[in-house]
Amino acid sequence: MRHFEEQLQELFKRIVLMGTLAENMIQTAVASMVKRNEALAQEVFAKEDEVNALQVEVDDRAVKLTALQQPMAKDARFLFMASRIGGELERIADQAINICQNTRHAIEYPPIKTLVELPIMAEIAQKMVRDSLSAMIQRDVSIAEKVLVEEKKVDAFRDQIFRTLLTYMMADPRTIQPALSLILIARNLERIGDHATNIAEEVIYWIQGRMFGTAK
Amino acid sequence: MRHFEEQLQELFKRIVLMGTLAENMIQTAVASMVKRNEALAQEVFAKEDEVNALQVEVDDRAVKLTALQQPMAKDARFLFMASRIGGELERIADQAINICQNTRHAIEYPPIKTLVELPIMAEIAQKMVRDSLSAMIQRDVSIAEKVLVEEKKVDAFRDQIFRTLLTYMMADPRTIQPALSLILIARNLERIGDHATNIAEEVIYWIQGRMFGTAK
Repeated sequence: MRHFEEQLQELFKRIVLMGTLAENMIQTAVASMVKRNEALAQEVFAKEDEVNALQVEVDDRAVKLTALQQPMAKDARFLFMASRIGGELERIADQAINICQNTRHAIEYPPIKTLVELPIMAEIAQKMVRDSLSAMIQRDVSIAEKVLVEEKKVDAFRDQIFRTLLTYMMADPRTIQPALSLILIARNLERIGDHATNIAEEVIYWIQGRMFGTAK
Repeated sequence: MRHFEEQLQELFKRIVLMGTLAENMIQTAVASMVKRNEALAQEVFAKEDEVNALQVEVDDRAVKLTALQQPMAKDARFLFMASRIGGELERIADQAINICQNTRHAIEYPPIKTLVELPIMAEIAQKMVRDSLSAMIQRDVSIAEKVLVEEKKVDAFRDQIFRTLLTYMMADPRTIQPALSLILIARNLERIGDHATNIAEEVIYWIQGRMFGTAK
């Protein structure tokens, strides 16, 4: 049983490592967008395999531990949480990569004013991911519940950015292509916020045994 | 142990039910788009709670079974698959809802030619979901592997639709708003294809014990 506890700790470490990596990818992706810097995008692409490999390892360990040990209710919840949070983090990493791809298209054109709103939205989305992981690491439901509240802010930003860019496109067709890329980036950030919300819900369920099913 | 087997069967039934529901939601959402029919969109919105409730139940049963019984490796894999496929199906249902929301915006404007390409893409995405579930029900790896191949088709369609709509928008700004909605629908369909691919990978892992970690 001692061995089992150690194995659970190992698994936990892997998720935290995945979270740090995913966070770092978002941060670099947003920097690439703000600084219009292609080299930063390359850094993000370079991390994809590592994140995917970690998710495979997390899933593998969670399933093996379930099969080899008889987990208690709380441990079983932890093992499922580990597997699902691994999935959310892998999706967050995917969104960071999508932000870089959309940035690559956007920076082929002159900058658009709205880029001042996107970084604010990006900040909120990043904070949601950071907080959802802190909630898990500190086993703190109150931090997780803050994340759930933030989600509405991100959605409001997405709508605002969408409307603003739409008016630019209608006014000047030359802005259509870069504006489209920015609209897609806003949606990438929205999805990052959704995944952070899912992680926060998993953490609350893990700690309180409460169940959520409204994954975004 | 007999009781455990029955419980696993019950869980399996719930996933199949969820899959049927999600499939039905995509079909209705696509019909709503093609027929430009708002009433069909309402039918899809009405099913959201049922899908979410089913996911909660699937997760709940999977975790409880893991905690109450000592699952063998294959059963443990099944329980994790159940939980993860439940998550994918809930996300597929979300995308059906997004298609309806985007359709609602699109039909405020005159139809755009490209709508002939979208239904073909929708057909492929729907077939991918259907096949990924058949692969699970029939425990047939070859069906699951076909789904993985289809994914590239969906991505190619998304790019083609995106390019075509872009030229329309540049040529006539009055098409910008409806075209944007169609671009978003193409992305919704792409994500449905991604989730079907994830389901197919879960099924292959379940049957062969092979591990995937590249969730989309």
